[in-house]
Amino acid sequence: MCTSISHVTYILISAFAITSIYDTAIAMEAEADPFVQHLDLQLDNSFFPSNTPFRAFRGIYNDCCLTVITNGKDDVHGTVGVDNVGTVPASVACFLALQKLKDIDEEAHLLINAGTCGGFKSKGASIGDVYLTTASANHDRRIDIPEYTTYGIGRLEHTPVTNLADEIGAKLGICTTGNSLEFHELDMVQMEENDASVKDMEQAAIAWAAKVYNTPHFGIKVVTDIPDGDKPAQEEFFENLGKAAASLQDALPKVIDYVCNKRYDEL
Amino acid sequence: MCTSISHVTYILISAFAITSIYDTAIAMEAEADPFVQHLDLQLDNSFFPSNTPFRAFRGIYNDCCLTVITNGKDDVHGTVGVDNVGTVPASVACFLALQKLKDIDEEAHLLINAGTCGGFKSKGASIGDVYLTTASANHDRRIDIPEYTTYGIGRLEHTPVTNLADEIGAKLGICTTGNSLEFHELDMVQMEENDASVKDMEQAAIAWAAKVYNTPHFGIKVVTDIPDGDKPAQEEFFENLGKAAASLQDALPKVIDYVCNKRYDEL
Repeated sequence: MCTSISHVTYILISAFAITSIYDTAIAMEAEADPFVQHLDLQLDNSFFPSNTPFRAFRGIYNDCCLTVITNGKDDVHGTVGVDNVGTVPASVACFLALQKLKDIDEEAHLLINAGTCGGFKSKGASIGDVYLTTASANHDRRIDIPEYTTYGIGRLEHTPVTNLADEIGAKLGICTTGNSLEFHELDMVQMEENDASVKDMEQAAIAWAAKVYNTPHFGIKVVTDIPDGDKPAQEEFFENLGKAAASLQDALPKVIDYVCNKRYDEL
Repeated sequence: MCTSISHVTYILISAFAITSIYDTAIAMEAEADPFVQHLDLQLDNSFFPSNTPFRAFRGIYNDCCLTVITNGKDDVHGTVGVDNVGTVPASVACFLALQKLKDIDEEAHLLINAGTCGGFKSKGASIGDVYLTTASANHDRRIDIPEYTTYGIGRLEHTPVTNLADEIGAKLGICTTGNSLEFHELDMVQMEENDASVKDMEQAAIAWAAKVYNTPHFGIKVVTDIPDGDKPAQEEFFENLGKAAASLQDALPKVIDYVCNKRYDEL
């Protein structure tokens, strides 16, 4: 790991949740388009193995090499228009991407996971808030055996980005991850123990991939629903997703502008 | 995919659960040893990227090229003696292994996931039973949005192995997968809907990796606990794990002996 990002080579944005579950009529790739076009990135069909569903868009922006990856569409379960979501495709795509970048001597200096999330009103979250993550942990990996409990929760600290949060007007908080959009009471107990401000379906798995590759990492998450509020997650999610996606599309280029060519201690 | 395994090149055994959660004083690699030694396989340090925790043991047995992979130890969460368990490391290890074998022109012809499991007494399972899996699905990925519900459950059919089951005296059944050793009542509802005979923490994720690589796949699972019985999973698990591990160690070489140089329709 380099000690600064003054010579940033790559920023990976895993745009999983930006666009996933948006609307089954709208492709993830179509939703990623505005960001990809703004940065003038090109689809690189040779980046991921051709049999995998993952996609990579690459290019140079502000003297900063960028790789944007998405998890692509499900094509093995007979579903229609469904994006790959959850921890399994997220972790696999990150591992393959980080390994590929090593193999071609273009090691990633920063991994950013961008997407939507639930936000806890008990932590001051409101619909549309932009959060930068300070740590992540799982709430659906309950293993009641000593040491394995800690492993299952799998808390990992993220790269501090206090100045970036000030710059773009974002809040800071811990992200709790689970593979269900909904949650049951045991999930809620663990989400509270995780001291989470936001809840998503990928972050903790991506953080693990980043850790194994020693790649500095944080998430940028926009709130679409309030898990400790009154409405069912999916109802609130669909009501607010358009606004949240627009908010994220607005914030992402600002993040890139800010982090490129900065030292880590300036973030 | 070849139409037969008369020229089997590789069998991957992902020995995740054989040895995981066994005893924090006993290493997974130590537990995998009897099988690896029986087959005279050698640790191949160049198989996985050196920064990953995964391990590969390779060699030739009965004119059949074998690769045994394990998920290795957790070294990022500050735990002691904890093996990597659950869907995330299992899927990543499988993707990296299947891709590596493609890259070196030694494509896997069959992927076998071996490990322990819970067995449902409502389906006739008893402690110590050996199961070969016919399909897999998730019980902890609840996404209440049309099409995404199907994706979350993620059911995948496995390669039929009826003759093999007869040969080694194994039962046949569907495996349901979740990231918790315990389960919640919503998990139980989904496990029943999945029509599961056995429950584990990896199979559905491994099946997804196998599907993306078009690699025939099934699991061999030995029952350590009864989820729809009276005892807590972890208590029963520890009581029976030694016996189950011995049973699995006995069955695994028989499986290798049987499948090597067979056509798929002979399995």
